[in-house]
Amino acid sequence: MTDPGLLRLYLVTDRNLALGRRLEDVVMAAVRGGVTMVQLREKECTSREFLELALSLKSCLSGSGVPLIINDRVDIALACDADGVHVGQSDLPCDVVRRLMGPDRIVGLSVESIDDAVKANSADVDYIGISPVFSTPTKTDTAPALGLEGIRKITAVSRHPSVGIGGLNCGNAGQVILAGADGVSVVSAIMSAPDPEKAAAGLSSIIFEAGGKR
Amino acid sequence: MTDPGLLRLYLVTDRNLALGRRLEDVVMAAVRGGVTMVQLREKECTSREFLELALSLKSCLSGSGVPLIINDRVDIALACDADGVHVGQSDLPCDVVRRLMGPDRIVGLSVESIDDAVKANSADVDYIGISPVFSTPTKTDTAPALGLEGIRKITAVSRHPSVGIGGLNCGNAGQVILAGADGVSVVSAIMSAPDPEKAAAGLSSIIFEAGGKR
Repeated sequence: MTDPGLLRLYLVTDRNLALGRRLEDVVMAAVRGGVTMVQLREKECTSREFLELALSLKSCLSGSGVPLIINDRVDIALACDADGVHVGQSDLPCDVVRRLMGPDRIVGLSVESIDDAVKANSADVDYIGISPVFSTPTKTDTAPALGLEGIRKITAVSRHPSVGIGGLNCGNAGQVILAGADGVSVVSAIMSAPDPEKAAAGLSSIIFEAGGKR
Repeated sequence: MTDPGLLRLYLVTDRNLALGRRLEDVVMAAVRGGVTMVQLREKECTSREFLELALSLKSCLSGSGVPLIINDRVDIALACDADGVHVGQSDLPCDVVRRLMGPDRIVGLSVESIDDAVKANSADVDYIGISPVFSTPTKTDTAPALGLEGIRKITAVSRHPSVGIGGLNCGNAGQVILAGADGVSVVSAIMSAPDPEKAAAGLSSIIFEAGGKR
């Protein structure tokens, strides 16, 4: 991935949190507000539905410059010609993912500890997701919260660009950047916002401001 | 797929039904008993575990002549260099699967109605799974049972080789063949058998005998 700026405000989807609105509508409002990357993460749907959502988002994002990343499913990413894939520690290993995805697409990896981050230094990934920064109701299968201190330690040892994820919102996004992450990843702070465009714009300006102070 | 004989006795796995035994042990006993094809179908595991199981089975089956088919996940099939993939009506569409898998691997498709079977005639698949023949506790998201009459009707309209699946065992396997299917697919009749080798051998001889009577 050429530009770590793409990580600045990284939206991860969850239809269940979209307050009944169409996923595509929430995502595109968020993109208008300043989201720089979108990950489709939908755990509760069939492969067919997942592909249909992916194709629909791919079409919506076309020409926006905002990459579409698919969570976990390399086959869905290949099938919809997504810009990349994001895997966790329980998903396919990075070397397998890179082989299937080819050299040019984005591969992201979640790290849940300093140990994971050190191991990721020898992996051919484009960025790491530091997860979870704070505890979050959005994802129930996560490791213990790493806190801002975890971001400091992990960004200090990692050779990869990084985003923090987990419990992030307007109130703590700036601190995540000041702690060393290149970007902030959110789910509910945008998906469940009454006005996703405004929520994204608010986060975006906080992230910009914090970046200037680093 | 060159030889429809590979469909004769098709084992679909489910670790939860293996009575605590290692999946690989049950599968290899079944292969010794006469299973001709194996599908790894494990819905309740992470992508990493699924791949590890697939690689392990691939290694066990190496040299046996018994193809390994992966359920639903084309990425896992590619990652473990499986012989093929099996998809249902809610999985990736067959044209997408064929494109990702290439022309030489096996692609199987579940059909749940005559309409599905007619549509499958224009799809580039190697076989169809007629599902479910009888109601089954193994799979809870299935369409209504098609019965032996369903097999007769579907095999009459289909241009593809076929296996029946759903509630099949020693007591009805022969009728499935007499109704027109090329093979019988089972889960619990082998996975939960006290002696999987003996269970497979029993089914195999019933299927042979019925094939001779057709």
